[in-house]
Amino acid sequence: MQKKLLENINSPKDLRALTLEDLPLLAKELRQFIINVVATKEGHLGASLGVIELTIALHYVFNTPEDLLIWDVGHQAYGHKILTGRKAIFETNRQLGGISGFPKRTESEYDTFGVGHSSTSISAALGMAIASKLKGENRHHIAVIGDASIASGMAFEGLNHAGVTNANLLVILNDNAIGIDPSVGALKQYLTNVKKGTNKRNNIIEALNFDYSGPINGHDINKIISELERLKSVEGPKLLHIITTKGKGLKQAEKDQVKYHAPGKFNAKTGDLLPKLDLKQAPKYQDVFGYTILELAKENKKIIGITPAMPTGSSLKYMMDAIPERAFDVGIAEQHAVTLAAGMATQGLIPFCNIYSTFLQRAYDQVIHDVALQKLPVIFCLDRAGLVGEDGATHHGVFDLAYLRCIPNLIIFAPRNEVELRHIMYTAQLGLKMPIAIRYPRGRGITLNWKQPFSKIDIGKGIQLKQGKKLAVLSIGSVAKNVTEAIVDLNVSHYDMRFLKPLDEALLHRVFKEYHTIITVEDSTIKGGLGSAILEFASEHNYQNTIKILGIPDDFIEHGNVNELQKLVGLDVDSLTFTLKQFL
Amino acid sequence: MQKKLLENINSPKDLRALTLEDLPLLAKELRQFIINVVATKEGHLGASLGVIELTIALHYVFNTPEDLLIWDVGHQAYGHKILTGRKAIFETNRQLGGISGFPKRTESEYDTFGVGHSSTSISAALGMAIASKLKGENRHHIAVIGDASIASGMAFEGLNHAGVTNANLLVILNDNAIGIDPSVGALKQYLTNVKKGTNKRNNIIEALNFDYSGPINGHDINKIISELERLKSVEGPKLLHIITTKGKGLKQAEKDQVKYHAPGKFNAKTGDLLPKLDLKQAPKYQDVFGYTILELAKENKKIIGITPAMPTGSSLKYMMDAIPERAFDVGIAEQHAVTLAAGMATQGLIPFCNIYSTFLQRAYDQVIHDVALQKLPVIFCLDRAGLVGEDGATHHGVFDLAYLRCIPNLIIFAPRNEVELRHIMYTAQLGLKMPIAIRYPRGRGITLNWKQPFSKIDIGKGIQLKQGKKLAVLSIGSVAKNVTEAIVDLNVSHYDMRFLKPLDEALLHRVFKEYHTIITVEDSTIKGGLGSAILEFASEHNYQNTIKILGIPDDFIEHGNVNELQKLVGLDVDSLTFTLKQFL
Repeated sequence: MQKKLLENINSPKDLRALTLEDLPLLAKELRQFIINVVATKEGHLGASLGVIELTIALHYVFNTPEDLLIWDVGHQAYGHKILTGRKAIFETNRQLGGISGFPKRTESEYDTFGVGHSSTSISAALGMAIASKLKGENRHHIAVIGDASIASGMAFEGLNHAGVTNANLLVILNDNAIGIDPSVGALKQYLTNVKKGTNKRNNIIEALNFDYSGPINGHDINKIISELERLKSVEGPKLLHIITTKGKGLKQAEKDQVKYHAPGKFNAKTGDLLPKLDLKQAPKYQDVFGYTILELAKENKKIIGITPAMPTGSSLKYMMDAIPERAFDVGIAEQHAVTLAAGMATQGLIPFCNIYSTFLQRAYDQVIHDVALQKLPVIFCLDRAGLVGEDGATHHGVFDLAYLRCIPNLIIFAPRNEVELRHIMYTAQLGLKMPIAIRYPRGRGITLNWKQPFSKIDIGKGIQLKQGKKLAVLSIGSVAKNVTEAIVDLNVSHYDMRFLKPLDEALLHRVFKEYHTIITVEDSTIKGGLGSAILEFASEHNYQNTIKILGIPDDFIEHGNVNELQKLVGLDVDSLTFTLKQFL
Repeated sequence: MQKKLLENINSPKDLRALTLEDLPLLAKELRQFIINVVATKEGHLGASLGVIELTIALHYVFNTPEDLLIWDVGHQAYGHKILTGRKAIFETNRQLGGISGFPKRTESEYDTFGVGHSSTSISAALGMAIASKLKGENRHHIAVIGDASIASGMAFEGLNHAGVTNANLLVILNDNAIGIDPSVGALKQYLTNVKKGTNKRNNIIEALNFDYSGPINGHDINKIISELERLKSVEGPKLLHIITTKGKGLKQAEKDQVKYHAPGKFNAKTGDLLPKLDLKQAPKYQDVFGYTILELAKENKKIIGITPAMPTGSSLKYMMDAIPERAFDVGIAEQHAVTLAAGMATQGLIPFCNIYSTFLQRAYDQVIHDVALQKLPVIFCLDRAGLVGEDGATHHGVFDLAYLRCIPNLIIFAPRNEVELRHIMYTAQLGLKMPIAIRYPRGRGITLNWKQPFSKIDIGKGIQLKQGKKLAVLSIGSVAKNVTEAIVDLNVSHYDMRFLKPLDEALLHRVFKEYHTIITVEDSTIKGGLGSAILEFASEHNYQNTIKILGIPDDFIEHGNVNELQKLVGLDVDSLTFTLKQFL
């Protein structure tokens, strides 16, 4: 009998037909449903488990989708998806052709705003609330944001504006003291004091003209519902502070919140992670970064590590554990991270600023204005470059080569394997007198024996990987692996450009003189990246060779595993072979 | 006798030899010196007049350049420049080859961090402070930031991090309730209440773990000096709140603070602005935007105007005055501005989001992730695109074509004159179902009779401006004017592409078939812009034409007037004629 509730809920309308007394049972079922699916299909777990009660309460109290609900980042929206008509297809989550792991407007009218990057929800909800007021529509607008995300500058900008409007905006601060890694910063300490009762009221929020209420227990569904009901009639901007536990309801997920953010496959009953195959595997690029910066930092006392809220994902945590005084998690604050690094560089330190490629978009101005313009030797390590797989369109790092290439004074390098990543990190900390961006992919590389003695890389020098006659392939970064496999049986040359900037012009002159046809391959957008750089070189030097550009097409690429997505865009081994053969 | 003090000050060392009693007189002289120079040479006036006492006090109390002083934005640093060895060359301010209007590291060891964009100072100073601590150096690190700038998200990120460090960081909040335009937002209201005494203490700042002191009168030099002396021995992050008057000491500048931010030429004695020549002039592009959005908004009730802190500079103020409920100044908050617009667009409103080209770099991720990915029809109006002149390297809008072109789902248009700007604004608000970026230059256009009846522009269609035989010139945007003049006597064709995206492929096929040589001209970086787009088109369609790209070289361009800078980069009329003749 106990399984009946969730089974019969196909929309929030069904949910609202339940009695208040039913809801704790529904919460239990919903939690178990998520655990069961994620245990086998993988995905983000902890965040959604932490907001089960809140999710039910929101759809119970508010008239979604008339009332507009925006989930910040969206890791926590699985319960929302399941309650809003996507229960049956939830097992397709994050798969090619399946539903997205994040709220997405084209997927459901309940997903009012697409998310993936942090701290956008307040601005978006305020925009909606202003629109409703202008249109004379009496709607509620609710942004659900975590304590890690609200500490990002963009969220502050949203609060600062909302506070001088009379918009019908409810911000729910989901305070669990953790993002992907534990939250940091002065605001987090402040909120902790609020929870402890050390501060009587949440003055920061009230100072910004918000009606503040809470903190309340976010797992007490009756309490949340009565609070939400009360807030429905409070006018203007208001913030409800709720305390939740990430991973709530699965013991291991509550205990090891970082690991169970996205735990991979696990035993749905016990919560235990499934043992990984004991094959000897090549390391993850992020670990090569993490181990190498620590190794270098032990010798070079000027080295600093900086991550905006990704100590685990970037593996900077190894250095943070070993040399905490020189490794900083600054929270979700990419802009600050970059300019902090610039400030350090003015004083002769050597900052490695590790930011996911897609998140560096958040600090684009700081890279141009604070770093490159001043020629400060900041070392950017851009993890998750190229196609990232299941996280999809919001997370692919496919614009970096294009948006970085137009910045003067910037060296741009992409290692084709772990050893090259290691060597360029070594090279960069020797002192370049200008900034460098090193972009490398998500996941594992290809080199078991990666920890080789450091060797200096010549800045601006590419290398030849294979000698052939019919044409030349120029690639950059880890997609070289696919090229190598694709040309095993083809009589073509293959060069790894390594540097998008400065280009190896001597190598290019040789290539342009020796081969009529030149094919460029990059796992970044074809608009403005390596291919364009080669075309510009040819134009400048009056070469008339045939040049073909292969890369990510000018579209947003959806989610799916990396192999599937490579096939989709023609960068997998078979597609590359097929394309290259057309030019032979 | 009274003129002796400033005359003999060639460095802060000389300043520190003065007695406390001398300082008010020095302040008077310094103020007059700035007024005298700016009255004839032009530049930013009000901000520097407002911090004369603070500037003197800082260099008097602290041991600059050992102690590190960072001016946020830098409009207010004229006094600093004059006291730190640049008195004699101050009259070259903002001129080609002269000193920069902003602090600049290569100009002086006293300019510890280059600025120009807002809200970077806390992050940079914190980076320096952490560096000093690691190096065992006992220095002070002082960031001077205005109340408009501290409300930007990036500043909050810096405060949030600094508050959990023990860095020797002093933030001086220069509260004058105005940036370029009056400050806005909830934090500003809060600070106003602090000043009035409505709030006893500055809880927001203290909540972030800063030692807060003030507010004090920022024109009482003795008071500031004693406060700074006291703060020298306060450990950890601290904030001193001072109240100043922008334009202090010049009556008209105090009264009309917006106009006297950068007043142009004026009478140094009376403060009166010099009468402008009464020639009938073509309008400023910004005014065409300002008048046109108002005209359109009167008819189309869905139209919204948004500016991040530039109501005067963008001329959105006309709409803000006439239709305040649909025109918003959100403060220095470009990220929020873009996502707010996205939220509005989800509800069927038609937001015009007006941001200077160089400042859109601050919201790059939001353009990609919140707008383009969701295909939301936000209309970006990017003022100050191309070379902006005397503001120099930090303000040129020369990266936009490159960094926008790689974004899928985005229309990119550049009007060659005021009428085209007017027509594209009309066209965009009719409904495009996707976002558009419209980029136009600083200053006046070329069309007296600009207010012509609205006419719809075909999306993705370029036009031919001149028919000729020898070669084809493809230009985009207002640089068409220079091309037109450059080819008066040349037998060449000239096309205005208008749209960088989507490209007019039909037109391009005709051009590529008709002309062997094609020259592209754009006032944006040659790395990744129109020229690259044309090269990519040629590569895709196997054209072997000779293509030459003209644009801004891959370097940061300094300050000077626009004509001088165009000559520098080869985009003035004579250079264009010279270059084109080489291909005839």
